[in-house]
Amino acid sequence: MQISKGVEWAAHAAAMMIALPEGRGLKAEALARYHDVPTAYMAKQLQALSKAGIIQSSRGAHGGYRLAKLATDISLWDITAAVDGRTPAFRCTEIRQNGPCGLKRKDCKSPCHIAASFAVAEAAFRNSLKAVTLADLGGQVVRDSTPEHLTDVMTWLHEEAQPLSETS
Amino acid sequence: MQISKGVEWAAHAAAMMIALPEGRGLKAEALARYHDVPTAYMAKQLQALSKAGIIQSSRGAHGGYRLAKLATDISLWDITAAVDGRTPAFRCTEIRQNGPCGLKRKDCKSPCHIAASFAVAEAAFRNSLKAVTLADLGGQVVRDSTPEHLTDVMTWLHEEAQPLSETS
Repeated sequence: MQISKGVEWAAHAAAMMIALPEGRGLKAEALARYHDVPTAYMAKQLQALSKAGIIQSSRGAHGGYRLAKLATDISLWDITAAVDGRTPAFRCTEIRQNGPCGLKRKDCKSPCHIAASFAVAEAAFRNSLKAVTLADLGGQVVRDSTPEHLTDVMTWLHEEAQPLSETS
Repeated sequence: MQISKGVEWAAHAAAMMIALPEGRGLKAEALARYHDVPTAYMAKQLQALSKAGIIQSSRGAHGGYRLAKLATDISLWDITAAVDGRTPAFRCTEIRQNGPCGLKRKDCKSPCHIAASFAVAEAAFRNSLKAVTLADLGGQVVRDSTPEHLTDVMTWLHEEAQPLSETS
């Protein structure tokens, strides 16, 4: 079971956008440079967040990304699902219907108990991530940071933040 | 995020072993035939369960597998970990230490909040699977089955169960 690296990148990138000044955005290239990761792969994660309605982009010379809603309304599960999808980790292939003693399809009205147990476990995983908002993550970073580090981050952000033109 | 198909197979195979008569075991080939899946891949899952101490094998003409401990002492997490490993699904690459405002390694004493949130979610997933024992799964199957189906299964099991020689 593996969460893709893109989820980590997307979460860090979205967390950076919390502190963006009104009407400004960050380019994929700037976010990639800030996190020292390849631009193309960062851009891919940002497109996934944009498609999921978590961030919004504006195109053209003054293009960039910013949050599409309040940081309190974006959960770590929203970001994970945007990047890695919502397909359950456990996929039941109904092998209880196979072989010499296989159950008939009509007798399989309730899910296999193994699949049902994984569904419960996956719901616990999702609910745990749903309880963590982007605002929580941002707040924790601020509380843990030194004033010098926060000044560095805010200086970088204000230098890189682009005024947005038309939002798409 | 994906749980391998082998986990489903291993869980079904282990559940079959609950009902084995004392001193008898099932061959990988029989378990593969019962579930109508390839023998080589079923054998691979059984070896993983054996390596984890969940089932035990006996070699030779009278070889076979049976549970190595009580079904009440084997959880669905034990089976999942035996087949898919215990590596966390989220792997933090510490990108907070990257780039122009990267934190210094010495200032990263506590885990990144994103990684910490995934650790909590994964613990919830694991704990949910730890709460389900093989005995629970077996009991649910028995409760949900028709008497005819249970008779079919037990007849098959008694025909296929091999007397075990030396246990390895």
